[in-house]
Amino acid sequence: PEKLREKAPKLGVVNGLAWTAVGGVSLEVQGVSTPGKGKLSLTGTLGNVMKESAAVALTYVKATTAERGIEDEKVFENKDIHLHFPEGATPKDGPSAGITITTAIISILSGKEVRQDIAMTGEITIRGEVLPVGGIKEKVIGAHRVGIREVILPADNEADAADIPKEVSKDMKIHFAKSYEDVEKLVFAG
Amino acid sequence: PEKLREKAPKLGVVNGLAWTAVGGVSLEVQGVSTPGKGKLSLTGTLGNVMKESAAVALTYVKATTAERGIEDEKVFENKDIHLHFPEGATPKDGPSAGITITTAIISILSGKEVRQDIAMTGEITIRGEVLPVGGIKEKVIGAHRVGIREVILPADNEADAADIPKEVSKDMKIHFAKSYEDVEKLVFAG
Amino acid sequence: PEKLREKAPKLGVVNGLAWTAVGGVSLEVQGVSTPGKGKLSLTGTLGNVMKESAAVALTYVKATTAERGIEDEKVFENKDIHLHFPEGATPKDGPSAGITITTAIISILSGKEVRQDIAMTGEITIRGEVLPVGGIKEKVIGAHRVGIREVILPADNEADAADIPKEVSKDMKIHFAKSYEDVEKLVFAG
Amino acid sequence: PEKLREKAPKLGVVNGLAWTAVGGVSLEVQGVSTPGKGKLSLTGTLGNVMKESAAVALTYVKATTAERGIEDEKVFENKDIHLHFPEGATPKDGPSAGITITTAIISILSGKEVRQDIAMTGEITIRGEVLPVGGIKEKVIGAHRVGIREVILPADNEADAADIPKEVSKDMKIHFAKSYEDVEKLVFAG
Amino acid sequence: PEKLREKAPKLGVVNGLAWTAVGGVSLEVQGVSTPGKGKLSLTGTLGNVMKESAAVALTYVKATTAERGIEDEKVFENKDIHLHFPEGATPKDGPSAGITITTAIISILSGKEVRQDIAMTGEITIRGEVLPVGGIKEKVIGAHRVGIREVILPADNEADAADIPKEVSKDMKIHFAKSYEDVEKLVFAG
Amino acid sequence: PEKLREKAPKLGVVNGLAWTAVGGVSLEVQGVSTPGKGKLSLTGTLGNVMKESAAVALTYVKATTAERGIEDEKVFENKDIHLHFPEGATPKDGPSAGITITTAIISILSGKEVRQDIAMTGEITIRGEVLPVGGIKEKVIGAHRVGIREVILPADNEADAADIPKEVSKDMKIHFAKSYEDVEKLVFAG
Ligand SMILES: [Ca+2]
Ligand SMILES: [Ca+2]
Ligand SMILES: [Ca+2]
Ligand SMILES: [Ca+2]
Ligand SMILES: [Ca+2]
Ligand SMILES: [Ca+2]
Ligand SMILES: [Ca+2]
Ligand SMILES: [Ca+2]
Ligand SMILES: [Ca+2]
Ligand SMILES: [Ca+2]
Ligand SMILES: [Ca+2]
Ligand SMILES: [Ca+2]
Repeated sequence: PEKLREKAPKLGVVNGLAWTAVGGVSLEVQGVSTPGKGKLSLTGTLGNVMKESAAVALTYVKATTAERGIEDEKVFENKDIHLHFPEGATPKDGPSAGITITTAIISILSGKEVRQDIAMTGEITIRGEVLPVGGIKEKVIGAHRVGIREVILPADNEADAADIPKEVSKDMKIHFAKSYEDVEKLVFAG
Repeated sequence: PEKLREKAPKLGVVNGLAWTAVGGVSLEVQGVSTPGKGKLSLTGTLGNVMKESAAVALTYVKATTAERGIEDEKVFENKDIHLHFPEGATPKDGPSAGITITTAIISILSGKEVRQDIAMTGEITIRGEVLPVGGIKEKVIGAHRVGIREVILPADNEADAADIPKEVSKDMKIHFAKSYEDVEKLVFAG
Repeated sequence: PEKLREKAPKLGVVNGLAWTAVGGVSLEVQGVSTPGKGKLSLTGTLGNVMKESAAVALTYVKATTAERGIEDEKVFENKDIHLHFPEGATPKDGPSAGITITTAIISILSGKEVRQDIAMTGEITIRGEVLPVGGIKEKVIGAHRVGIREVILPADNEADAADIPKEVSKDMKIHFAKSYEDVEKLVFAG
Repeated sequence: PEKLREKAPKLGVVNGLAWTAVGGVSLEVQGVSTPGKGKLSLTGTLGNVMKESAAVALTYVKATTAERGIEDEKVFENKDIHLHFPEGATPKDGPSAGITITTAIISILSGKEVRQDIAMTGEITIRGEVLPVGGIKEKVIGAHRVGIREVILPADNEADAADIPKEVSKDMKIHFAKSYEDVEKLVFAG
Repeated sequence: PEKLREKAPKLGVVNGLAWTAVGGVSLEVQGVSTPGKGKLSLTGTLGNVMKESAAVALTYVKATTAERGIEDEKVFENKDIHLHFPEGATPKDGPSAGITITTAIISILSGKEVRQDIAMTGEITIRGEVLPVGGIKEKVIGAHRVGIREVILPADNEADAADIPKEVSKDMKIHFAKSYEDVEKLVFAG
Repeated sequence: PEKLREKAPKLGVVNGLAWTAVGGVSLEVQGVSTPGKGKLSLTGTLGNVMKESAAVALTYVKATTAERGIEDEKVFENKDIHLHFPEGATPKDGPSAGITITTAIISILSGKEVRQDIAMTGEITIRGEVLPVGGIKEKVIGAHRVGIREVILPADNEADAADIPKEVSKDMKIHFAKSYEDVEKLVFAG
């Protein structure tokens, strides 16, 4: 369980939390930017809601560059962004990777590395609000199982967090985020 | 019920009213503009009628810029507009968000903030007429439930407003709009 | 019934006639042009035949600009045309709005206002011929019901006009058009 | 029956022959060119085979401009071509309008008028060969019924022409074409 | 049967072999190039495998221009290539026209004429390998029936050639090709 | 079985391993680059997962050019890449050709030849990680059958390799790769 904790921060790689028939699982997003023309590519067999979620995250980041370490005005015109969700053959959907995707985009554009010992779930709006999502209990149990000891959940899911079993929650540092600014203070290393 | 009333005006965020199987609900639209090439993006799992409604609203705003605080001729060529309807996983359709969308577009392009203590419903035409929509009673009851005390309805729905229960209507300030100009006088702050 | 007659002429707004399961209804088209790149937008939940009909009307107008008050050669390159058919949620199809659409396009490009006390139906070809359509009796009865007292029908529907009940036809001025030139002489105000 | 014979030649309008459940019918194609960028538009509820047929005809004309009165090299880059098949609501398909479409394209690009007292059917290849088509008997009977007295058929349909009833064929001048060059000598006026 | 043998070589026209429910048939491809922008058009009601086959053939030719009489570097940028498979209404699919298509492309780009007394079948790879295909016996019998006396088959179909009846094979010159270079030595005239 | 071993290294051709109902089979990818505009073409009847896999591989290569013999910054803008999977009529899908495709792209862009006596399977991420895939036993048996004596498998499939029968594994050199860098050391000749 300590395996993940010790991992060094990485650029563009963020641990999300997903919820499937067999329980909560870790859902990693990987972002890479290459010289390009402002295109956003999405791979990993994503459904339409998840694709829209990435578009929402990108608009939120575009609209708030001034508040961050992304100075170059042309950053979105001269780069292509590719977000990939391994494992490629597994279909993925839903809005709950919103803050995970937002974090990956900010990391690759700003050069700030992301902590690998923390995982997160939450829908994002184009104004940076963090909306509640489903499967909180299962997701946190799943994160605990793979050694995660710190998670970020939407503030409006605070009631659902009461359902997390004691033997899991006692090991966990749980943060509640109302807006992406709350997320941002936690996920970037150093 | 006072929660919404006290909210400060916001840029690009407008409270619409929707009508689902479980009654009337609040349907927020969020608009953001970024440097771009005149593209209109729509997210939030929207149906075709709602997408067309946004195109109609945009044309109406384009055709009436001279009458408003949108002076820059190139505003539509040099900006992308992204309209998002949280919650991303909930399908939404129908023409009744027309005046809501119109208000969001005008707000983000003109910089005028929108009152958050008012909600609205009504189809828009490219000439700015406000057409009647369904579910008036349910929508107003739903707005009342979340603390809204002022609503804008289409003038041609005036008869339907008689069905709103007294215990709701007595708390409510109800405006009837024939054209978007009637809406415009009410929704922008200050 | 005098309501419509008194309406002042409008730019880009034309009264068509449609024919549904419940009888003839008025089908308004609204045209607006904005600065653009020659794009034709169509909204109002239109079927493919109706979309093609608009493309045919546009080509006819493009090919005959010299004969009209549209002098600027670049008019089609520098403008976007948006044709909207309220009510957005009602599906519409068929070729019979051809002359209605043609009139809307000419009005917004030439600045000539359209009479609102007249309604019309008829398929258009790219050469400006007016072809016969279905539902003549129902359409004229429907127009009469909403106060219209003057209609334009295709010349090849003259036989169908005999089926219009006397109590309707006695109030009506009925014109028969072989080509769009016959329509043009009637629909523009002043 | 003399009605069609007397019609004056027209630019871009060609009489084809089609074959439906109720017998042979006349299938007119109308071509118009407008200033543009080399786009080919097709309207009239056409199936894919018929759309491809138009693309084949256009390539054949492009590849043989030198042999005709189409001198301007840029003709295909600076014009849009719109081919319309009235009546817009009737679905049409099949390759047999190939030579009809070819004739319409050559007429609008060269300015040569097309005889209206002649009708034709035949598949075209990009090399200008005329291939056999179905429904020869029905098509010629249909043409006769609407007053056509001269038709062009594919050379490889010569055997099928024997099935045309005497009372029709005795009134008819029937031409057989092996290549489009055979068609071309017949269809243009003057 | 001597009819085809005597035919003069042609530019861009190549005899392929296809295999249908009723036996082997001749499948002609016709290639034409026109001034353009490097677009590849395909007509003749082709399935996806056949469309991909044409893309593979084009890449192979692009990658090997230096080895052939195609000198102009810009040839692919300044020309459109249109490949048509008469008869337009008959659906066609499969990879076995690969070497036929390759030959048509090389002919129209290099100006070298193709022998009309030879027919061929074989899948092509982007590296010019000739892969085995189905229906060898039926295809060769079909070619024999229309007077073809010389065919090119994939080398890996040599075993299948043993199934060709003696009364056919005794009249036939059969070539086996491992790579397109083997085909190229045979198909171009003089 | 020595046939493959003796084959000389080739540019852009890589031996993958696939797994079908009838056992493991060799799945070759062929890459060719031509002058172009940065387009990636994929042929061979590929499913969506496999197409995304190629997009992932391309982004990984784009993001790591500095670490390789690909010096020209404009390489991706001025070239088209075409990846073809013979045999064109056989549908192919899944993420397991990831490292095979990556190798083909690097080979054609760097000019480094690929060993033909080695085969590989493994999903790739845009960060170059090699993820486990299915059918390991069947794939290695299939490779052995066609004479392959050296294979690269994902490190996370090491347990599955225990299922490979002794009479196969004793002939085989099996490499396990955690990241593409492990693959890269093995596949390029010289
Ligand atoms: Ca990882
Ligand atoms: Ca979800
Ligand atoms: Ca809100
Ligand atoms: Ca509605
Ligand atoms: Ca009206
Ligand atoms: Ca109709
Ligand atoms: Ca006519
Ligand atoms: Ca036909
Ligand atoms: Ca031939
Ligand atoms: Ca085949
Ligand atoms: Ca091989
Ligand atoms: Ca797989």
